[in-house]
Order: sequence, then C-alpha cells, then structure tokens
Amino acid sequence: METIVIKNGTLISASSEAPCRADLVIADGKIGAIGHFNPEGAAHIYDASDCLVMPGGIDPHVHFALPAGGMVSADDFENGTRAALAGGTTGVIDFVTPEPGERLMDALEKRRAEADGKVLCDYSLHMSITEWRDSIPKEMAEAAAAGTPSFKTYLAYKSGIGLSDAEYVRVLDTAAQNGYLVTTHCEHGDLVDFLREKFIREEKTTPYWHPRSRPPAAEEEAVNRAIALASTLGAALYIVHLSTAGALKAVRRARAQGLKIMAETCPHYLLLHEELYDGSFDGTARYTMSPPLRPPQHSEALWGGLMDGTLAVLATDHCPFCTKGQKDRGRDDFTKIPNGVAGVEERMKLLWHYGAAAGRITPAQFAALTGTNAAAIFGMAGTKGSLSVGADADIVVWDPKLETEISAARQVSKCDESIYEGWKTSGAPRFVFTRGKPAYTEGKVIAEPGNGQFVPRRLRL
Amino acid sequence: METIVIKNGTLISASSEAPCRADLVIADGKIGAIGHFNPEGAAHIYDASDCLVMPGGIDPHVHFALPAGGMVSADDFENGTRAALAGGTTGVIDFVTPEPGERLMDALEKRRAEADGKVLCDYSLHMSITEWRDSIPKEMAEAAAAGTPSFKTYLAYKSGIGLSDAEYVRVLDTAAQNGYLVTTHCEHGDLVDFLREKFIREEKTTPYWHPRSRPPAAEEEAVNRAIALASTLGAALYIVHLSTAGALKAVRRARAQGLKIMAETCPHYLLLHEELYDGSFDGTARYTMSPPLRPPQHSEALWGGLMDGTLAVLATDHCPFCTKGQKDRGRDDFTKIPNGVAGVEERMKLLWHYGAAAGRITPAQFAALTGTNAAAIFGMAGTKGSLSVGADADIVVWDPKLETEISAARQVSKCDESIYEGWKTSGAPRFVFTRGKPAYTEGKVIAEPGNGQFVPRRLRL
Amino acid sequence: METIVIKNGTLISASSEAPCRADLVIADGKIGAIGHFNPEGAAHIYDASDCLVMPGGIDPHVHFALPAGGMVSADDFENGTRAALAGGTTGVIDFVTPEPGERLMDALEKRRAEADGKVLCDYSLHMSITEWRDSIPKEMAEAAAAGTPSFKTYLAYKSGIGLSDAEYVRVLDTAAQNGYLVTTHCEHGDLVDFLREKFIREEKTTPYWHPRSRPPAAEEEAVNRAIALASTLGAALYIVHLSTAGALKAVRRARAQGLKIMAETCPHYLLLHEELYDGSFDGTARYTMSPPLRPPQHSEALWGGLMDGTLAVLATDHCPFCTKGQKDRGRDDFTKIPNGVAGVEERMKLLWHYGAAAGRITPAQFAALTGTNAAAIFGMAGTKGSLSVGADADIVVWDPKLETEISAARQVSKCDESIYEGWKTSGAPRFVFTRGKPAYTEGKVIAEPGNGQFVPRRLRL
Amino acid sequence: METIVIKNGTLISASSEAPCRADLVIADGKIGAIGHFNPEGAAHIYDASDCLVMPGGIDPHVHFALPAGGMVSADDFENGTRAALAGGTTGVIDFVTPEPGERLMDALEKRRAEADGKVLCDYSLHMSITEWRDSIPKEMAEAAAAGTPSFKTYLAYKSGIGLSDAEYVRVLDTAAQNGYLVTTHCEHGDLVDFLREKFIREEKTTPYWHPRSRPPAAEEEAVNRAIALASTLGAALYIVHLSTAGALKAVRRARAQGLKIMAETCPHYLLLHEELYDGSFDGTARYTMSPPLRPPQHSEALWGGLMDGTLAVLATDHCPFCTKGQKDRGRDDFTKIPNGVAGVEERMKLLWHYGAAAGRITPAQFAALTGTNAAAIFGMAGTKGSLSVGADADIVVWDPKLETEISAARQVSKCDESIYEGWKTSGAPRFVFTRGKPAYTEGKVIAEPGNGQFVPRRLRL
Repeated sequence: METIVIKNGTLISASSEAPCRADLVIADGKIGAIGHFNPEGAAHIYDASDCLVMPGGIDPHVHFALPAGGMVSADDFENGTRAALAGGTTGVIDFVTPEPGERLMDALEKRRAEADGKVLCDYSLHMSITEWRDSIPKEMAEAAAAGTPSFKTYLAYKSGIGLSDAEYVRVLDTAAQNGYLVTTHCEHGDLVDFLREKFIREEKTTPYWHPRSRPPAAEEEAVNRAIALASTLGAALYIVHLSTAGALKAVRRARAQGLKIMAETCPHYLLLHEELYDGSFDGTARYTMSPPLRPPQHSEALWGGLMDGTLAVLATDHCPFCTKGQKDRGRDDFTKIPNGVAGVEERMKLLWHYGAAAGRITPAQFAALTGTNAAAIFGMAGTKGSLSVGADADIVVWDPKLETEISAARQVSKCDESIYEGWKTSGAPRFVFTRGKPAYTEGKVIAEPGNGQFVPRRLRL
Repeated sequence: METIVIKNGTLISASSEAPCRADLVIADGKIGAIGHFNPEGAAHIYDASDCLVMPGGIDPHVHFALPAGGMVSADDFENGTRAALAGGTTGVIDFVTPEPGERLMDALEKRRAEADGKVLCDYSLHMSITEWRDSIPKEMAEAAAAGTPSFKTYLAYKSGIGLSDAEYVRVLDTAAQNGYLVTTHCEHGDLVDFLREKFIREEKTTPYWHPRSRPPAAEEEAVNRAIALASTLGAALYIVHLSTAGALKAVRRARAQGLKIMAETCPHYLLLHEELYDGSFDGTARYTMSPPLRPPQHSEALWGGLMDGTLAVLATDHCPFCTKGQKDRGRDDFTKIPNGVAGVEERMKLLWHYGAAAGRITPAQFAALTGTNAAAIFGMAGTKGSLSVGADADIVVWDPKLETEISAARQVSKCDESIYEGWKTSGAPRFVFTRGKPAYTEGKVIAEPGNGQFVPRRLRL
Repeated sequence: METIVIKNGTLISASSEAPCRADLVIADGKIGAIGHFNPEGAAHIYDASDCLVMPGGIDPHVHFALPAGGMVSADDFENGTRAALAGGTTGVIDFVTPEPGERLMDALEKRRAEADGKVLCDYSLHMSITEWRDSIPKEMAEAAAAGTPSFKTYLAYKSGIGLSDAEYVRVLDTAAQNGYLVTTHCEHGDLVDFLREKFIREEKTTPYWHPRSRPPAAEEEAVNRAIALASTLGAALYIVHLSTAGALKAVRRARAQGLKIMAETCPHYLLLHEELYDGSFDGTARYTMSPPLRPPQHSEALWGGLMDGTLAVLATDHCPFCTKGQKDRGRDDFTKIPNGVAGVEERMKLLWHYGAAAGRITPAQFAALTGTNAAAIFGMAGTKGSLSVGADADIVVWDPKLETEISAARQVSKCDESIYEGWKTSGAPRFVFTRGKPAYTEGKVIAEPGNGQFVPRRLRL
Repeated sequence: METIVIKNGTLISASSEAPCRADLVIADGKIGAIGHFNPEGAAHIYDASDCLVMPGGIDPHVHFALPAGGMVSADDFENGTRAALAGGTTGVIDFVTPEPGERLMDALEKRRAEADGKVLCDYSLHMSITEWRDSIPKEMAEAAAAGTPSFKTYLAYKSGIGLSDAEYVRVLDTAAQNGYLVTTHCEHGDLVDFLREKFIREEKTTPYWHPRSRPPAAEEEAVNRAIALASTLGAALYIVHLSTAGALKAVRRARAQGLKIMAETCPHYLLLHEELYDGSFDGTARYTMSPPLRPPQHSEALWGGLMDGTLAVLATDHCPFCTKGQKDRGRDDFTKIPNGVAGVEERMKLLWHYGAAAGRITPAQFAALTGTNAAAIFGMAGTKGSLSVGADADIVVWDPKLETEISAARQVSKCDESIYEGWKTSGAPRFVFTRGKPAYTEGKVIAEPGNGQFVPRRLRL
C-alpha cells in the first residue's frame, strides 16, 4: 500500500491537550508518523487545511438487519456501514442475539456470516446473553476468546430476550470473575409490560401512551439496580442508551466512588422530547424507540453528563424501521410498532453542531465521545479511535464549517423518514479513511462492500 | 540545537487513547515528530525501553521564597525548581502577592526579578488580588496582557491578604467580563479567625487545635459560596487545595451543570490524616498546613474525585518551613506556626505509587493530573503539558519500576523534615528534558540556574 | 371570668393523632377541660358542629409599623393584629430593630411602647442584632431575660442592619453558649448590592430586574453558609422566609443529621411566581418583596418541604406598603421600591385552601404549620399553640366550608392592593377566642385595642 | 365499668405541643375527659406524679408463633403479648401468611384462631400476599373488609414467600386502585440467594458470612425499586425494618416529593453493629436476623431519620428463636439458622434510654414513634395510639427515672438469650392500661389471656 500524507490539518485527540497543527503520514494502513514532512515521496496528498483531523467515529450500538416481529430493521450491514461512513464513522459494534437454546459460538458464526464480505467499514459484535444455562460461563469464555468479550443483557423484554434478575446476577458474576464487560438495557421489564397491557386493555392505543408505558422511573430504577448488583459482584458495567436525569445521577454517584460504571446516551435523547408524542399515529410513530423520548429537563441533564464526563459515549442504537409497512403495523396498537430510529449517519454532525459548535463541548471531547472512549471501553484501544502512531488509520478529516441538511430523501439509510428532517447542521466529514484507504471523499462513499473487517476485541478489566 | 531522539518509549498522553510505542524526535527545543525513525542523524539518543514517555509535570501551586511573618519558606526559586526537576516536574506556577497599595505590575516585576535567571525550569505566575481599588480592573488587564491571566484570591486570612465578599464579587465580575480565571483559597476566614482566637483564649495552644480551628465545614462553606458567586456572575473558577468530601460534592454538582468550576487537591490530603495531630508539638508541627489534614473518609472521597475527573489537577501548595527556627516559633501557640509543607519533589512519585501503580488511575490520567490539565486550564495548552508535535519538549522519561525512598536527609528541598520520611515508592523519572535539553539524568539534576524561562499565559475562557 | 363551652367541635391537634370530637371548656382564660360535658353551668355556649376547633394561629414573622426609607409599613400594631384576628391568627411575633448604638433593652422598651395597649391579640418580639459591640452578649442576656430570647440577624442589607460574617459568628457563638435561638434572613448581601448597583448603572430600572438582583443562588448560598456556621458553633438556627429549592435541600440535609436547623416559608412563595415581574411598574410593583418570587419549580419543592416537615412554619413576613405614595417612589428605580407584602390576614385561608383542602397536608399539619410549631420553636409551648388543658384559650373555630374572597377593598389591612385580589378560598374562621374571650365572631373582629398582651418567651435549647 | 382517674401525670402527645399536666379520666374503657377533676367519684385513682402519661405503645411488626423450617418462633400470642405489656406496649400487629394456594380469608381465620382468646392485649394482623392469582384482587378486598387492609410483601425469599416483580406490581396496582397499604420487606432476593449459595459452596459457613450475603446494597437497591414501582403506580408503601443509610436517603427523597412512602426501623439496627458477627457460632448466632446488623455509620444515619421524621415508626420484627435447639441447627451452615431476634419487651425502654433520655428525641417524638404514628398509618387513628377523648384507654404511665436491667433470665420472652443481656436502662412503665383496665402494675403483668381483642382496621388512603 502506498503512503498517504494528510497535510496541514489540525489534529484533535481525546484529551485536554491542545489541537496540534501537523502532517499525518499513513503507511501500511496505519498511522506512521506525525510531524512536518516533505511530502514528495507520498503517493497521495490530502489537503486538510481549515479542517480537523480526528480518529474516525466508532458507534458501539447499532442494530443492522435486526429481526423484530417478522420484520427486519431497515438497514443491513452493507447499507448501515455505508451510512456510517457518510457520517464520519469508521467502526460500528452490532450485536449477536442467539436463538433460544442456541450456543453462543453458533450464533456468532451466523451473525458474522451476515456481515463479513458486506461491510464497508470495520465492525465488531457484542454477544447477547438472553437466557441462562449451566454452560453459559464456558460459552462466554469462548465468545470472549473469539473477540466478543462484551455481553449485552436486557432487563426489559422479560418475555423474550430479557433476563430475570437471578440470571442477570449470574452473568455479572461470570463477567466479574473473568474480566468481561456487561452492557445492559435498563428498564424495569415487568413494570413496562404491566403498563403496556393495562393501557391496551383501557383502549389507550396511540403512541401517546408509549412513553407513559416506559416512564423515567422504569429506567432510573433499573439503572440503580444494575449498578447495585454489578458493584456488589465486582463487575464492570456499561449502560446503554441512558435517557433520564435520575439514571445519570446514579451513574455519577457510582463513578464518584471509583466504580467501573460507564454509560452512553444517544442523539435523540439530547435533541428531541416527549411532547412530540402528540397522540396522532402519523405525527408520532416515527419517534417510537425504547426508552422513549423524555421531557426536556432530562436532555439538559444529559448534556451536563457529556460535559462532565459521566457519559463516556454518544452511540445511536441505530435501528430504523420504515413507517410504511413496518411502523404502521402498530397503527391501532402502539405496542405493535417496531421500536427504533436511525442515527449512525447523523450522529457526528448533530454532536458537532449542537455540542462542539455550540460551545458545550470541546473538539477533544467530541473526539472522545464519538470514538476514542468507545474504543477504550470495548477493547480496541491502540488500534482504533486514536491518532497515535501505530494505530489503524481510521481517520476523518472534518470540516467544521461544512453545512448540510438532513433529509430522508437524500440519506443513505433506507428508512423512509428522518426524525431530523430538514435540520441544517454545520460540520461534516470531508474525507474518511479506513485502514488508510479513502472511503468517503467530498460527499460520496467510495468504499465497496467487503472493505471492512471483523475486529476482535480484548479487554483488560 | 541538535536533534534528540527518545527511542522505544511508550508514549502516554492524557486521554483515553492507549499508550503508543514510538520514537519521539526533539528538534529546536520542540517535539518535532513521532513515529519510527532511523536515528542515525540524531545527535543524541536516549533509550526509553520499558519506560513511559510523558509530558513533564506541571505543578501550578508552589510558593517559593514566600515571606510569612518575618520568615521565608524554605525553598527559593532556584532550589524549588531543582526539587521540581528531581521529581519529574518541568514547570511550576508560583504567585505574585502585591503589598498593600502596590500596583499589580510593580509587584509582578519584583516577583519576576526573584525568579528570572535563577529558575532551573520554566515557570509562570498567578497574580494575587489582595485588596480592591477602582483601578484594579485596569491593573488586571495589564497583568493578563503580561501573561498572568489567572488571579488568586483568598477567602481566609481576612486581616491580611484575604478579600471581603464585596471585593471578591468585583474580582469575579471583572474576570467574567474579560475571560480571566479566578483561583480561590476557600476557607471561611472569619470563622477560622474566631476559632483560633477562642482556642488561644481557652489555652488550647497545641497543634491538636489547628485542624479544629479550620474544620471541614469552613472549607465546604467557602467552596459552596465561591461557586455560587462565580456561577451567578459567569466567572470561571479554580479552587485550590480542595481537601474535603463536602467541597468535592459541591464541585461535582457544579460541573454536572456544565459550569466552568475546576479544582485541585494535594498529595498530603490523599495520603495523610487528621489523627496525626496528636497533641504534641514535636510530633505534629510538621503537618501544619492550611487547610489541615482531614479524617480518612475525606481522602477516600478525594481519590474518587481524581478517578471521575471532578478534580482536574494534583498540585502541591509546596511551601515548606523548617521545624528548627521556623515552625518552632509556634511551640506555645499553634497560630504562630508558619503553615505549609513540601511536595513538588514527591508529587509525581506519590501519585504514581498510590494512584497509577495501585490501579486507581490509568497512566493517561496520571499524565492529565500531573501536567496536561494544568497546562490547559492555565493557558499553556499547545506548548506545555503535551507530547503533540510542536509543543515544547518538556518531557519526562518515567521508569515505572524504579524504587526510591523519601528522606529529608537526601531530598533536594532545604526543609529539615519530610512528612513522608521513609516512605518507599515505585516509579520515578529516569530522564527529564526541558525545552529539549536534558535537565535530569539518572538521579542528578544537571540543569543550571537560569535554564528556565518565564512562560506568559493566554486564556480563552 | 365566666366559663365558655365550645360544643361538638372536632378538635385538631398538631400530631398524627386523629381528630377528636369533644367539647372544650374554657375557664379563667385557659383551656379547662376536654370531654363530653353537660353545658348547663356554662355562661356561653358556642356551637362548633361541622367545624374544626384548633389552636389560634401564630404568625412569628410580621413587621407592623416598620420604618423604611422615610416611610412606614401600612399596618400598625392595632390594625395589624386586627387583620391577624380576622384571619384566625391569635398571636404574632414582630421585631425590635435597635438604632445604631442603641442598647437592646432601650430599643425593646420603645418597641413595646408602640404595641402595648394597642394590640388586639397577644404578641411577642424578636430582638434584632444589627451590629456587634463588646456588650452585646450582656445585652442579649438581658433581652432574653425580658422574654425575647430569639435574635434576628440579616446577611443581606450589609450597608444597614446587616451583619458581617465576623459579627454573625459572634452572635451565633453567644447564642450557642446560652441557649438562645438565632433567626436569619439569608441572602448574600454583597452580591445583591453589587447586582442592584450594576443594574441601575446599566439603566435596568424596572421591577423586572428585582428578582434578577436577588437570584436563587444568593439565598441558597447564604442558607448553606448560615447552616455551616451555626452547626460548627453549635447554635440553633431558624431561617426566615425560605424561598428556594436549593435552600430547602440544605435545611433537609442538616436536619437529617439531627442538627437544630429550622425554617419557615411564606404563602407568596408557595402560590405566586417570578413570571409576574413582567417589566411594567404598575403590574409588577405590588409583588416586590425580599427575597422575590421564584420560578414555579421552587414552589413545588416548598410544598414538599411542608409535607415532609422540613419546613416547620408558614409565616408571612407581613409588611405591606401601599402602591400609591409608597411603592411608587421606585417607579424609575426598582431599588427604591419599599419591599414587602401583606399576608397575616390571608395566611390560614390560603394554606387551608391550597394545602389542607387540596389534600397536600392534613388538618393536623395545618395546625402545626400555622401555630403549634411556632409556639414550640419560639418558647411558648404549653401556653400557646395548643389545645392542651392549661394552655391559654387562644382558639379558632374553623369552618372548612366557609367561602370568602380576597379583595383589597374589603380587607382589614390598610394596604391599597392585594397580591391575591379576587382569589376565592374555602375555609375560614367562624369564631376566634383570645385568652378565652371572643375576639372575632361571624365575620367581625370584636376585640378592642389593648385586648392583647406582650408574651415573654423562654427557650430550652 | 368503673371510672378510673390518673392523677397529676404529665400528658404527652405525639406533637410539637408541650407536655400538659392534667388528670385523665377513663370511663367505659375509653378516655373520657382531660382536665383537673375532683376524683371523689372515681372508683380507682392512680397517682402519676413524676410520671408521663402516654398512649400505650403499638408494635406493628411482630411474629408470634411463626413457623420456620419445622420450628416455631419462641413466643406465641399469649406470651408475646405478655412481653409487650411488660414493656409498655398495648397493641401489636402480627401477620397472616397463607399457605400456597390458600385463600386469604381462610388463612386469616386460621391465624385469628391462634390468637383470639389467648392475647393479653389488643392485636391486629397484616395480610401477606405470597403469590399472585387472578382472584387476589377480590381476596384482598375481602381481607380489607375484614379489617386487614395492609398487605405484606417480600422481595426477598423468592423461593418461598417472596414475590416476583411481575407479581409485586400487580399487588401495588391493586392497592393503589383500592386504597390499601402495601408493606414490603426490601432485600434483593435473587442476589441474596446467589451469595448464600456461593458462600456455602466456598465453605464459608459461619455467621460471619450472614451479613456479607445480605449486604447494604441488597436492601438499598430493593428500597429504591419498591419506591419507584409504588410511586409509578400511585400506591402507598410502608417499608419494614429499614436498616441502611442508602435506603433511608431514598425514603427521604421520596417524602420530599410528597409521596406516601413510610418506613420503620428496629432497635437492633440502632444499637448493635455488624462487627458482632465475629466468626464464631456461639458468640454470633444470636444476632442473626434479616436484614443483618450493619456497620455503625448506618445506625447514625438511622437516628437522623428518627429525628427528622423520615422514619415514622420504631417496630421490632420480634421473632426470637432459642439458641438451643433452634439457632444451633445452623451451626455448620449459617443459611440454616432461623433468623430473628426479640424486641417487643425492650423496645420502649431502649428508645427512651438511648433516644429521649439522651436528648436525641423529645418525649412527643417518643410517643409518636412507639405508637401514635403506627396507629395513624395502619388505620387505628382515633381509637389507638392517642390520649384524645374518645380513644381507647390503652395507656402507659411511664416513669422516666425507673431503672431496669435486661436479662434473659428475667425476661418474659421464652427465648433463652437476649441480645441486650446486662444492659441497664432508665425509663420503664409503672402502670399499663388496656381499654381502661389495669394490665401491668409495678413490675407485674396482671392481664389474663383473652383480655385482648382483634382490632379491625380501616384505611383512608
């Protein structure tokens, strides 16, 4: 592979160090050197003047081709990673969700088969534990050895993939004994199920009732519970899609004690609010995700959590379903609407515009929240999410002034709507490199399916 | 200046990125390049195998040659910076304390005259505001333009250098209007003065009464007050030598709201406790500093603050006084003991041993807490506290395994005691560079007086 | 004096005991017996069927005939106590405010001369400490012996009656040593003064700027400070007119540690909000009081404080000024508006309607908040605020269904406005007795000036 | 029944009113009048000079004749109520625990048959819900109508009487819809079960491991969860035997929002600590109860909760098992030790000595915590726990100076040990009356079996 030089950019790293104006040399797919170089020997030169050079984004929470009630989420691995690249993201972590009784390694193999050869950027997988059996510790060890040492658990969805607390403590204990990371969807499943059934029984069937069936207390309770169990058992815990002020406080309290409790939030919890569920199906269905949007004071608190470091990651839970033919199956019963929205394509633009450009966070925090922290937490530090010499050259050249408009019509995602339709943002990628190869230039994804690889991960907890 | 290459080190930066094994090239006193280089052209090669290469430490809170009641603190600028280098610290920030009525710029000039030509490493100065007059805003602007845009204020010491609240709000407002940083010693001066007088009146004269005259509530109250005033007026605030759990909570609460409130603690608050004030003068006087040592639960909370980022900096408040001839003037009246202890020499060793080696913080956090964060907060980002290309080559090559023992007999400081006497720690500097020049090698400070320069600082608040 | 029997009422006491249907016999001005009696021997029988029989209200925070900038508050002792009786309140505590240099006992005598012979109901006085001198401890002892063992202090109004912190700690310490109670107006005086001057300098002269010059943080800070100082010195503290959520939290935290920290709020902080300061003088001036009205979330928190017992007392800070000729002197400068609103007449009706009738508090809590707690806190337990046998027969027969409308035109207060104009409330007194004599019956105050007495108080702290 | 007069006592009620010196007349088993009476017509006169006259205590948490693993707790209804009377307690509430599948009313009948005719004082029963079936709402309505409107639930003991969360939300919802009260044993059952099994597997079999298998986090988590579920569903909740600082904070937070969340603690959590579990069976087994004793900082917090009213009730969870033949079945496996300790006899003495006499609480708070509050919470206000005219004359004449010593040898309880062996306390009952009849005089219980009655309760939530 030929040498590439990115000239004159302002290098941003995820620390309190100042940005640094320097050239970055890519060689053999890795970052080769940083300094001021005579580019004459370089095969390709990219001009990054007036741009920021940052590690490509990592979105550790996407659901491509997710089966849900006979449907499947709108973007598959190919198109999902294409959307990621278009947004400056060079790595995603999706999930393996074993069938009842299926061995973890079998499920991992099947899931990899869906992605390998199709992804346009690198990807990795979390392993979901959806039931307990005596062989689970051994299976978890195999999965960890195969590069998926982070295990997803659900405290909601008790009738399906959710775990009982008795199972959950066993997963946490296994993780604690072996240095795995547990990630958890925190909502009180039994309470949510009870409220959903009750509302339907009472003929409260519109999406207006969706957030009321999953109230803030359902999340706050579950986050508090997960932290209590994890800290008692000594397990590291990562809370996905945290959406409420109370849950954030619980995480902050735990971290102040030095506990290994981490959390992510998603763009929609920062930027959209509960009042959008106005009662009509057509105006509202597009916003159905779990947990649901919250009253504005929660968003304000979440921004505080990004600013003070309590929230380590901005992920997306990317899992859009089209309104036509998918969400509209729940037109007469909100519990039948497949839950999920898009985000992998808009994530970095939104955080730049509303976070960095608005002065809430620094460019360094932007880099940390969109990639570096996720790489560190999930076992890819040193190779991903970093501009350090020797790291994979997954790089985004970010133009902080570039204005774009979000629109379902023009988006890469195959979803037929956008929850951010018509929003204009400043800041967008100009070039994106994956392992040193240009993957997106000036508005176009040029990487081909199969360009990406599976990234096995190793944790040191 | 000739080129230097530090080979094979593990580069640590203050972020969540992984350490990176690479060579670091120094040219013209700055970091020139990072990568893997053929060192043939290099004038000097330093082998950093098995060592960490980090930004040199910055201690933003030292008092060299501090006059106090007819005495002067034990280390002057020459010896103080020598002690700093011996401990891996390549930059310090001391203070200008104007006399009553003295113009700030006159005081700055006088203080610089004490340091320039004598310091062995770079230094900067905070400007103290010890009284209000109508010209203070203009004088602050001059001081800021001269490179001292951080202003120290005291809520204690009301009869001397302390400010009344009416003065303090004017300082905060001036800072808020102009983007200066206010740093504050937070103890309720009137309460402390009242208790000191009361105890002496009641013949409670031993150092046992020192911490009781400056109880945790005196600090917690003042921190809460300073935050309330600063946030109302929109001023950025940096709290020095924070020592209590309650004050830490107040800072955490403020930061969770996105307020620009920062804080430092010192090694002695992490590692020594109130019970050392046992009543005898001889066993106790060496521990007299303000604020005093606290019960152990405070230390535990402070470690949590370092871990979760609420505390941004480990500084020292280095201001030792000898027991003989200095502290012993208060043998019969603890209020006459000059307050202060050493730390600039031991700071990094202690934090490595009890923090990084003990698993409480990562090497990246170590770099952030000992230097990078201070550089960013005080307006030296880009030149100090960083391994970025273009930054000043103030570098420490840290051997994490090197064992040393603290001892008054062998320390650089001229104090006749050490509060850490006999403590053995793992982790110490092997080489230290200042602006690319070797300043400490293998146990010896080789820099000469005058090697350091005054560093003017610029803030962008 | 002849015997009176109140028949068939439902006796309410300030506890978790249930209401009790019984007759109450008054003899010699005191409660003689409770039970079921043959009323034949009684001189007078009052039918309390369908009514609640409760201790008459005590309002421990009124300012009758308060001089303020050449004006005097609208109600004097005669009219103020008439308004009190019309609202079911049988006892008030006003303030002695010594002139600079004036001995406390001289000031007490002068203040008593304004009230004695004029009051229609019993009254007592708090002694204000507005400056420190060496004789203050002795003077406080005299005042306490004369029945005023509660001492009012101001952390605001630093240029006038406010204390410096150095003075305040001396007052607290004297109180702690002698078992007096300190009551404190908590706002950060220097901050408020600074903001007021700044706003006027910036030509921000309308009452819209009044709350902005006294922000929530100014109170929260001062409450936190007062608690820290009082608890360090061991003094009991009562915070007047607490108006913010943050201050309430500080009180709750202190009480959870068993500290003797108490607080009151006022009806206007529960029922009116900051948005009333709309910028116009005419629509807004009537709402100027200190501290000012707050955003609604503070009121919500205050209700929580009444419900959980953190707030012990609902007082009024009754101190109305007429708009014509008084408030309008500040038409061009909000800092010249005399601060204060009425409340002694409406207090119990408002708390019944919005508190008890609305289900937020029980009738027992109503009795506690309007009288029993104040009597206990301020040293009148056993004689006032109680239906116990032997207590003064200061009684209100309360008709929970009686509807009345608040109107400046019909109020007893001589103020020319009402901040509750047109509000309709359920629940009002039917009969009021003072020391066993009817003072208000069926809509008319029948007590004469001189009917009331000065009540000396004794504390056991 | 003849008239009784208790002369010259100091009447204490559960409010902030002052004690009142008066005579109390008992007629027809009820409190007839309070005042100063000529006792000539009285059949019996009891001299209460120098004594306090208070409502008899109510202990709402006792387990008499509780079957546990083939054993039964040491005191049956007869002896348990005898112990209660000896301690000044005139009313207890025990539990109905239906067998699997048994209808609630059948279980109630059986349990009443164990008590009726045997109890020496009045008693009532909580109904336990130990499993869900569709008829439970109807059965709960029947139980409430039969006078047991408070329903006990267990979040621990999942393999036996504990509820799953799915069941628990149904109970809470039923209670919310119908105005019942849910009381809950809050420990995370699955976590506790997991730890117990794990410890035994690891041969950690001594009682030292008992508290470690039920750590504070297990309670704090469950309390937080119960509050979240109850408040979401609108149910009133009473938490039994709260033992940790974190759980207390959660209750305080809920109450500050006006939620109907109440809690009790027990004497052993106030006065004994975790370090008593020293590892030996013989020294330790007597302290095994659930939740277990805690480190001392929890006790300190609990005292704060009694002082500030967060904890409404001091109950006992009286459920002693003898060491010989009962506790010693767990000599080789702490999970086999029957859990429970005594308390009904010592409760009031301990709270008087360590609470009221020590100045932590007032006599009024003592009366509230030992009886009045429980009566109000559980639906007996007006008849029990009160000195109001018309209430049942369940009265204790308390001699605050009377010194007694606790000793297994002399106690009424049939347990062969006392966890307070040898403790000397000041304050003890002199006379106890039940429904106006003397039941305990001068050291002797004189009531006979059958003296007490079942007290049906009615709630108004």
